[in-house]
Amino acid sequence: MSQLRWDPLKMSWVIISNERGRRPRDYILERQEVSLTACPFCYGREDKTTHEVFAIRPDGSRPDTSGWQVRVIPNKYPALRIEGNLDKRGIGLFDAMNGIGAHEVIIETPDHDRQLADLTPIEITNVLRAYRARLMDLRKDPRFRYIIIFKNHGVEAGAGIPHSHSQLMAVPITPPVATTQLSVCREYYGRKERCLLCDILRQELETDERIVRSNEEFVVLAPYASHFPFELNIIPRHHSHDFALLTDQELGILAEILKDTLLRLRSVLRDPPYNFVLHNAPPMHLRLGKPAYWGSLPYDFHWRIELVPRLTKIAGFEWGTGFYMNPTPPEVAARFLRSADPTVVY
Amino acid sequence: MSQLRWDPLKMSWVIISNERGRRPRDYILERQEVSLTACPFCYGREDKTTHEVFAIRPDGSRPDTSGWQVRVIPNKYPALRIEGNLDKRGIGLFDAMNGIGAHEVIIETPDHDRQLADLTPIEITNVLRAYRARLMDLRKDPRFRYIIIFKNHGVEAGAGIPHSHSQLMAVPITPPVATTQLSVCREYYGRKERCLLCDILRQELETDERIVRSNEEFVVLAPYASHFPFELNIIPRHHSHDFALLTDQELGILAEILKDTLLRLRSVLRDPPYNFVLHNAPPMHLRLGKPAYWGSLPYDFHWRIELVPRLTKIAGFEWGTGFYMNPTPPEVAARFLRSADPTVVY
Repeated sequence: MSQLRWDPLKMSWVIISNERGRRPRDYILERQEVSLTACPFCYGREDKTTHEVFAIRPDGSRPDTSGWQVRVIPNKYPALRIEGNLDKRGIGLFDAMNGIGAHEVIIETPDHDRQLADLTPIEITNVLRAYRARLMDLRKDPRFRYIIIFKNHGVEAGAGIPHSHSQLMAVPITPPVATTQLSVCREYYGRKERCLLCDILRQELETDERIVRSNEEFVVLAPYASHFPFELNIIPRHHSHDFALLTDQELGILAEILKDTLLRLRSVLRDPPYNFVLHNAPPMHLRLGKPAYWGSLPYDFHWRIELVPRLTKIAGFEWGTGFYMNPTPPEVAARFLRSADPTVVY
Repeated sequence: MSQLRWDPLKMSWVIISNERGRRPRDYILERQEVSLTACPFCYGREDKTTHEVFAIRPDGSRPDTSGWQVRVIPNKYPALRIEGNLDKRGIGLFDAMNGIGAHEVIIETPDHDRQLADLTPIEITNVLRAYRARLMDLRKDPRFRYIIIFKNHGVEAGAGIPHSHSQLMAVPITPPVATTQLSVCREYYGRKERCLLCDILRQELETDERIVRSNEEFVVLAPYASHFPFELNIIPRHHSHDFALLTDQELGILAEILKDTLLRLRSVLRDPPYNFVLHNAPPMHLRLGKPAYWGSLPYDFHWRIELVPRLTKIAGFEWGTGFYMNPTPPEVAARFLRSADPTVVY
């Protein structure tokens, strides 16, 4: 069983994974880039993976067989496990709890050689439908305080397996980044009765210096205080706190603009490694000591997708201070991306 | 002039560097690993660098000539500049200030082919003396709220130039990691009249599960909630808030244990990329509205060096949540490092 441990100096929880239990040899071999013998995410290897928890199968094929278009499975080496209880405890000065949670892999396509940007808008819509389905399912479990969906593309961005996939983690505590954003948004709303992100969106659309693209439902922009070069946010134009409330039609519009954004990045930066993260409202919010409603905070929190190409390293300065240096102003990044031709394959 | 911009959602400042102004081409070329034609940190190229601000020259040679053992120069492409004023301002919803600060490079040896771990304890002592001298000098400038010294070793850890060096940055705001640690330590002291790190040290020495090595002055341990595999802290055994107060003799003892630690990591993990960071007390602490004394907080803050081998990637999950996954428990890391032979060259 892995453990969550509290860092009393940095005031944050860390997942310490006993089960994975990586020894020095593992890190040394990894640096020598040992290749996988057979990809576990391709058709025909469904019996080698964990049992699927969700799939889109237009041909009506049976679970854990070929025929799927998107497939969701629990991570084979999960950082957190779904069975058990938290068993919160103190060890002298220290605090720990059991590593309870969910860790799933969303396999975006059966095709080993196509990345997310290569999929058709309809195929990307199916990936987003899988996100929505898993969010809806896992938020029922009251042990999970937060559910995060993210994608690592490219080795430098942390992708361990090249076959295109995203990941989901349901965690038993609200993570620090979410806590900060939720409290900032709540405080802002409390003072002004307006959503912070709605206000930012209005100002950004007015000044029009950092907008990359927009359509009737979404705006893609380079944030004013981008932590990384070419960092982007995809934000719903109309206030919405919960990604899981998107209709199929809205998912289709999001798929189109997500594909366009990924193609622009690829065209300008030559297939950069990247991460994206869905910042969504937490599944429940304790108001007056009891869960008020699923997908809460409808007024003050505004969901978004944060997309970060990994062009600079997080090094000693960033790690030691939490302070970031970005050598490309977001206005410059937005200008390059705006004028990029997403149809050009480099 | 670079700018500091406030991220209203993440509640943190970002340095946006207009001057460096990196364009897409720069990132693409960097990934193709264009090699430097001539190393600017070697003997004979002193006139190609900025003017030195400190050097150790046992032969009495003149500044900006060869003959030095350690040399400190302002970064040629500084993220922050020393001239000017902060000019704090609001831009609609957003906040900015000028990028005022210092950004220096500590060249640790004239020898291009020796890394920090290869230097003799006396040579490493000289590097630490340079740290101390620069801390003492820059803390006189009241614009600088915090001074951080850090080292990036290896390309994966962010080292741009292979010639062994560390860096220093003086920043006009207290960075988030420092703010958290300072306030946690102050609160703990306020409640218990004991230093948090002294208490942690006592418990760690008692349980003896995570100690790697110790001598009369310093303890090397793998922290209980290590964010990364094989993360280490070098902590003064007796309470001290300020690295700059170390005597030459104490610096010598630190140099010996730092070298030993780097050699153990090298032996166990085959020269891993790493970062280290000196967490020191801020140069001044405003008590009752006025600077009380240089190197303040003598009771509640305890300095330390944090050393992080970069074996895992900071990917979507970590970036999106601020929550870390460490696949090697610190007890396991400490055991491997304790039994390592630092004299074995792999």
